[in-house]
Amino acid sequence: MSLPLFLVEALPAGQVGVLDGPEGHHGADVARLRPGEHLLLGDGRGGQARAVVTAAGRGRLELSIVERWYAGPPVPRLVVVQGLAKGDRAELAVQAMTEAGVDEIVPWPAQRSIVDWRGERAARGLARWRSVAREAAKQSRRPWLPEITEPAGTAALAPRVSLVLHGRAAARLSTVELPDAREIVLVVGPEGGVAPDELAAFTAAGAVPVRLGDTVLRTSTAGVAALAVLSARLGRW
Amino acid sequence: MSLPLFLVEALPAGQVGVLDGPEGHHGADVARLRPGEHLLLGDGRGGQARAVVTAAGRGRLELSIVERWYAGPPVPRLVVVQGLAKGDRAELAVQAMTEAGVDEIVPWPAQRSIVDWRGERAARGLARWRSVAREAAKQSRRPWLPEITEPAGTAALAPRVSLVLHGRAAARLSTVELPDAREIVLVVGPEGGVAPDELAAFTAAGAVPVRLGDTVLRTSTAGVAALAVLSARLGRW
Repeated sequence: MSLPLFLVEALPAGQVGVLDGPEGHHGADVARLRPGEHLLLGDGRGGQARAVVTAAGRGRLELSIVERWYAGPPVPRLVVVQGLAKGDRAELAVQAMTEAGVDEIVPWPAQRSIVDWRGERAARGLARWRSVAREAAKQSRRPWLPEITEPAGTAALAPRVSLVLHGRAAARLSTVELPDAREIVLVVGPEGGVAPDELAAFTAAGAVPVRLGDTVLRTSTAGVAALAVLSARLGRW
Repeated sequence: MSLPLFLVEALPAGQVGVLDGPEGHHGADVARLRPGEHLLLGDGRGGQARAVVTAAGRGRLELSIVERWYAGPPVPRLVVVQGLAKGDRAELAVQAMTEAGVDEIVPWPAQRSIVDWRGERAARGLARWRSVAREAAKQSRRPWLPEITEPAGTAALAPRVSLVLHGRAAARLSTVELPDAREIVLVVGPEGGVAPDELAAFTAAGAVPVRLGDTVLRTSTAGVAALAVLSARLGRW
């Protein structure tokens, strides 16, 4: 069986370390790891280590590092601009995209977004997306945590966008020419899709509309399906 | 906006028809379609028609057919053998795979499946999967409904299986040679994965273990990600 992964702010600098806080609670009290058992530590920025438990207390594990390694940052970065969608659909999207290796997600309040992230709700929504992404990254054992940025609007995003998923696009994501750039930025609309003037704003700035097959994908499925196609094409998978 | 799709047992033979039953209720009482409005009819076996409402009553729409067309069955068929997983995870998998164009799903009681579909629970579980697939097929406007078969065991399935998703496989789904056959049958394990002797049974019968990247995908994400890669490679998307 695979070793459990715990996320830490920084890997221990030397040969020994302590896991405490929420991850220590999870390891000592929930997973109930005992001396002699192995686990993985990750800092979410490429640094990983395998460690053995040397002592276990309430909410706290003492560790000895067995080996450590570093995974370089993925190139190109895969960035998804995700239209805000109703609660569980948005969280499913963030979860599945994180498992599928997204490097950055930008919450996008689109014209057809039904939820409203103004004021306090933005902070709550963002905290929720970050928490979902963090848990999914642990589950999927990613060496790099995806970045969940502050929300951004259409005009601010347009210069950065490379591709827009759109059901009536002429080009296909599976065959369209991909930008030879440090990042590929893909827009996924909310449940109601990308509005015509949003599409116009993105394409005026150079983005290409692309489609995934001929059926209609929910916003919680579209992003992960697009990441799968991109990852296969880029040789990441 | 796209027209709503209603699933019927058979398309009207002539120029006029009636939509009643649950779909008639949905069209007349929920979507509240009125005379002059258009809708799509599909028989789930490739037959589709566009119709205009000529009269609307309680739970019932009278229709006049405007045009009709037929979409041939997809070749090769994409079949997913889906390990039984806990309630909402299995249903998310069925929903997302249906949107992504799966042609057949075989429920698979795997060694590591936590849920148990013996006896009455099999009938309930199967009814639930079929209902989720039917709704997802409507939402995604598929001309062909996916088939959700009766559950099948490892030994019965093995001769038919082409690919098994497995995190430690040497081959990658994005580059492995695909069988030149009428169907591609892919196994997706339950939350705990495919057990060693299940993998041995499949590979002994000729199946190839393949992986999707280096991170761990949940069972509700793995199938749709694999279908995306296959659909792109086969030119379906």
